[in-house]
Amino acid sequence: MLFRRLLSGRNNNIINNCIKSINQNKSSILLLNNKSPNFNYNFNFTTTTTTTTLSRFNIVGPNLEKNMENKEKIRNGLEELMKRRFFITPAFQIYRGVAGLYDYGPPGCAVKANLINYWRQHFVLNEDMSEVDCTSVTPEIVLKTSGHVAKFSDFMVKDEVTKLYFRADHVLEGHIEKLLLDTKLTEDKVKELKHVLTKAGDYNQQELKEALVKYNVKAPETGNALSDPYPFNLMFKTEIGPSGNNPGYLRPETAQGIFVNFAKLYEFNGKKLPFAAAQIGNAFRNEIAPRSGLLRVREFTMAEIEHFVNPNEKTHPKFQEVANDKVFLLSSEAQDTTKEIIETTFGDAVSKGLIDNETLAYFMARTQLFLHTVGIKPAGLRFRQHQRNEMAHYAKDCWDAEILTTYGWIECVGHADRSCYDLTVHANESKANLTVYEEFKDGPKMIDIAVIDVKKQLMGKQFKQAAKAPMEYLAGLKDKVDEAMQIQEALNTTGSYVLNIDGQEFTLTKEMVTITKGQEKKSGKNYYPHVIEPSFGLGRIIYALLEQNYWTRENDEQRGVLSLPAIIAPVKASILPLTNSEKLVPFVAKISKLLKEAGISTKLDDTGNAIGRKYARTDEIGIPFGITIDFTTVEDETVTLRERDTTKQIRIPITDLALTLKKLCDNTVSWSDVSKTFPAYESQSE
Amino acid sequence: MLFRRLLSGRNNNIINNCIKSINQNKSSILLLNNKSPNFNYNFNFTTTTTTTTLSRFNIVGPNLEKNMENKEKIRNGLEELMKRRFFITPAFQIYRGVAGLYDYGPPGCAVKANLINYWRQHFVLNEDMSEVDCTSVTPEIVLKTSGHVAKFSDFMVKDEVTKLYFRADHVLEGHIEKLLLDTKLTEDKVKELKHVLTKAGDYNQQELKEALVKYNVKAPETGNALSDPYPFNLMFKTEIGPSGNNPGYLRPETAQGIFVNFAKLYEFNGKKLPFAAAQIGNAFRNEIAPRSGLLRVREFTMAEIEHFVNPNEKTHPKFQEVANDKVFLLSSEAQDTTKEIIETTFGDAVSKGLIDNETLAYFMARTQLFLHTVGIKPAGLRFRQHQRNEMAHYAKDCWDAEILTTYGWIECVGHADRSCYDLTVHANESKANLTVYEEFKDGPKMIDIAVIDVKKQLMGKQFKQAAKAPMEYLAGLKDKVDEAMQIQEALNTTGSYVLNIDGQEFTLTKEMVTITKGQEKKSGKNYYPHVIEPSFGLGRIIYALLEQNYWTRENDEQRGVLSLPAIIAPVKASILPLTNSEKLVPFVAKISKLLKEAGISTKLDDTGNAIGRKYARTDEIGIPFGITIDFTTVEDETVTLRERDTTKQIRIPITDLALTLKKLCDNTVSWSDVSKTFPAYESQSE
Repeated sequence: MLFRRLLSGRNNNIINNCIKSINQNKSSILLLNNKSPNFNYNFNFTTTTTTTTLSRFNIVGPNLEKNMENKEKIRNGLEELMKRRFFITPAFQIYRGVAGLYDYGPPGCAVKANLINYWRQHFVLNEDMSEVDCTSVTPEIVLKTSGHVAKFSDFMVKDEVTKLYFRADHVLEGHIEKLLLDTKLTEDKVKELKHVLTKAGDYNQQELKEALVKYNVKAPETGNALSDPYPFNLMFKTEIGPSGNNPGYLRPETAQGIFVNFAKLYEFNGKKLPFAAAQIGNAFRNEIAPRSGLLRVREFTMAEIEHFVNPNEKTHPKFQEVANDKVFLLSSEAQDTTKEIIETTFGDAVSKGLIDNETLAYFMARTQLFLHTVGIKPAGLRFRQHQRNEMAHYAKDCWDAEILTTYGWIECVGHADRSCYDLTVHANESKANLTVYEEFKDGPKMIDIAVIDVKKQLMGKQFKQAAKAPMEYLAGLKDKVDEAMQIQEALNTTGSYVLNIDGQEFTLTKEMVTITKGQEKKSGKNYYPHVIEPSFGLGRIIYALLEQNYWTRENDEQRGVLSLPAIIAPVKASILPLTNSEKLVPFVAKISKLLKEAGISTKLDDTGNAIGRKYARTDEIGIPFGITIDFTTVEDETVTLRERDTTKQIRIPITDLALTLKKLCDNTVSWSDVSKTFPAYESQSE
Repeated sequence: MLFRRLLSGRNNNIINNCIKSINQNKSSILLLNNKSPNFNYNFNFTTTTTTTTLSRFNIVGPNLEKNMENKEKIRNGLEELMKRRFFITPAFQIYRGVAGLYDYGPPGCAVKANLINYWRQHFVLNEDMSEVDCTSVTPEIVLKTSGHVAKFSDFMVKDEVTKLYFRADHVLEGHIEKLLLDTKLTEDKVKELKHVLTKAGDYNQQELKEALVKYNVKAPETGNALSDPYPFNLMFKTEIGPSGNNPGYLRPETAQGIFVNFAKLYEFNGKKLPFAAAQIGNAFRNEIAPRSGLLRVREFTMAEIEHFVNPNEKTHPKFQEVANDKVFLLSSEAQDTTKEIIETTFGDAVSKGLIDNETLAYFMARTQLFLHTVGIKPAGLRFRQHQRNEMAHYAKDCWDAEILTTYGWIECVGHADRSCYDLTVHANESKANLTVYEEFKDGPKMIDIAVIDVKKQLMGKQFKQAAKAPMEYLAGLKDKVDEAMQIQEALNTTGSYVLNIDGQEFTLTKEMVTITKGQEKKSGKNYYPHVIEPSFGLGRIIYALLEQNYWTRENDEQRGVLSLPAIIAPVKASILPLTNSEKLVPFVAKISKLLKEAGISTKLDDTGNAIGRKYARTDEIGIPFGITIDFTTVEDETVTLRERDTTKQIRIPITDLALTLKKLCDNTVSWSDVSKTFPAYESQSE
């Protein structure tokens, strides 16, 4: 449940304040570049340990440090590229679009499919998870139980005259930003206003109301009075079937599908803990006024894991494999004090109690490895711990993987230890058994129970047909010794006790029931497992990795390159006949077929463009390897193979092409190895 | 747009009458076995050519003929297996579920993911299609334009007293079925009633009303009067954003996302025809009373292709590759006459004009190859041509791939030549240019145009500020010579002509405008491409392939086997230590790691069960290969490898395992080849 903090309305401003749509008009982007007052959530990154890391880059290729120095150039260049090459586009644009809905065009769609496939390999297959695929349409009872119907809201205000609506925190922020333009403010006042700006997205209904009054905020543009803030539920509502009395929602996260199937998953996993279930699928949030482009959308793909574990056994058998992995952490404490990101290892972080347990840390390490492999730069990834007031009351510890973009640090993967909250609420509401049963390791033992002696006749006489409910309730207290003994205590002292069952009251007297302590031999016990939840927002990861891998060549600022790792690149190789000559055509067909059979995706450019222009076009969409067919090919059946980032070329026989590319794409051989095996080729036309 | 015939309300009964939920209670399934009167849509399959085909099976493995003879046993056995092994389950079952919503458990989810990956390889990669990924939430204007808001409906009736609702055709069918139980009916009457049963699902509102009156149909159970039938739109409706005036729907098909992005896709494909776009994603249909289990659900995954082509060039460059492929066809004509399924080739069918064009036939052939590869039996697949009254008026030719299941022939993939309908309606409504431009092959030529001489002053005087609309409209007639000359004709004869533009009327007089024929030199022309649309319902294909591959061993009726091809099987190999002995544990770890690295998914069964029981459990979920680790393994590092369908085993060194399995799963080597390479192993414990 990534972004679940929305439930409490907290912390939205980290994103809302710091980022702006890549599709928004330029003027508002300008307002929010790093000189904007509300950019102060960008923790200083130049601590001793991390400064060095920022420079750990290849000579050739994207450079995060450089990108951060040229935020606007990078952002605008990428935006223009994404539009021009149909990576991602506002949906329904011929009908003027719908805010917050985006379509993936062919290169974007391929990147997304590659990301999903690799996620499945890295998590589901490698960790033996049970993947499920549940529906998006969800009946109301499920989301009432999870708390979403009551609490999954943002606050709105309405212009009292025009009835136009706004997000309350947006209006407040806009007003504060204007106030801050006043150069005559005292230092204290500036501090106060900046504090409001940082916190506005986290304010609850009352705090928002007070701030709107205190700063005398009016409706933007009209200056009319505003309504008090009121909640708007962020779920898309619909009706299931034609009856008119079966409301449903589009799921705001995929996790609930796993929780409601818990008993079947437990059975599927041989009734043994721990096990993990996973789901990749779409989720929907009816944002009030989405304005952050790809980073805040109304429909998006998530990948979530629910790892079910014994609350007393949160060690992880494979933790040693990751214990020495280095990681950048921003602890809850540091956020209040030094703001310092520390570089440490997962092993140290767990042993010092910074990360709560091995299992949570293991998943953070797996996430980090996943993100590095798909192209996120080590210096551009940190884990930020939730502060106590950000977390739900039941959560034990939460760490967000945040990725550095020109919009600031963006929350992309949540990692939460959610204790047993979800299973407990669903079990209580549905009456299904969502506990696990575990035998005592050291054989059967005597366990305290409550011995409940009910006078059935007396109860029947008193409660008539309704007597079944209190009798069943009392019988169910056998294993709840404390609760049972409290009832007896009350009966002893006051002579009666009122049971409230589903809103109906039953007054028990001490004549009706006697409860004593006893013992029973048992070989095991039932309990609710805890759940540790890594939750990925794939769209945000895609945006961040496109941006971190976007750069322009030093000698050609107009020429964008997307240095996507081969595993993620939309197409693995381009096939580029040097000219339109008929002589080259049979080789195009031959090579296409060879590579297709080897499972290597290709893109043909048989336009009459010059080869340099063709290379530029494949660099832009991140194709890692280019195959040029020229007139030497006709003579000796060799082609040139070009690597995207270095632009270096080799001459390679067609017969070696498929296997070499396969190895390069699988990362079992490096470009520098390949360069040593085949002769270099000097191109004049880059 | 699979199942688009719903738009016209036609032909639903093929499915509705013949199939029943695997999750329905047994009594209603019994009612509808092949002795049921409404099963007569099952065309006789034992024509001379096809009888032989039905017997073309392996000695060992699923046998379609046998399955068809034991419909109920197969269906119930599979249903029980799917539940027990968590393939597919009713969604939200702990809350008593929601009709028409199903979740995929781990084996089902893996089969689905494999099917999608192979679809992407077979179509998108192999045919160089442009895949897109568009949103499900769709603004109303898009679906109004496509016709779904007005016409995507089924008809309901209400019990006038209880207000309970029913699908009108279901109530009619139920009533007719009861009437048919009367043994004293005349032969003519039986024929009439059976005809109604066949057609009820296709009736329009008026026909349904008449039939309900004619047969005096009352509400089921209560016998109360029924309302007249009225339409219920099958789209899930929602509101986008909080304004209250931005209605949206969940898409009922994925195709519209491609049409609205046409201009970008055309640009992406270098402004050349033909090209194809594809999309895999969920679609939603708010069925009135879903009762056919997995075959009629409210949320499902589709895979759709829109192949855009010049209307005059529907040949296909790769048609020769498939021209000799054999195919079973049930033509439109045969459905009215002989009911005979013919076995022919795609080449013959096109040359005889049975299939309209090469491109349509090429896609049918590719679909057939896809379905055969994933496990659909050749004898259990036919293509049924739409009858003229089933097709939308604009469609040129449509063929459904129908798969034989115990529920009858199930429509699983539609293939429609939809002409230029979709692009034209969206262009007209959105005013976007959705045409393509093509240069004349033989150089520039003189083209007829309408020369429109408008007296601007006169029009301005007459229509004031509104004059812009008729002037623009007239200017736009330049290339629409026929329409333009009709206006002039009217002006000549009656002296005036009424233009209707967006509901506003403008009366032109012959003084205002003079239109004459002229010519203009042009080097090319704009036109709307035609679209050929293969549309896959993945859930139906999954159900059909599970059923066609389900069987029980001759000596063990309780032992279900799913003979899924390795490409589709949820897991490729099981790892089965013979006992719980500590000695075997290191080999489990070693083999798991080796296979994981080779990308072969595995499932470990380290329970204490006997090996025969373990094999049975892996057979049930369709794992094609089983690796048994025994005490010989400890001595010589060999294991046994067992093939699921034959249960034959070989002894193979661990070092050869990964590569051998990889080849077996990629189909580059057959089991019989492997059997010759390694020594056979006789197991006593099957």
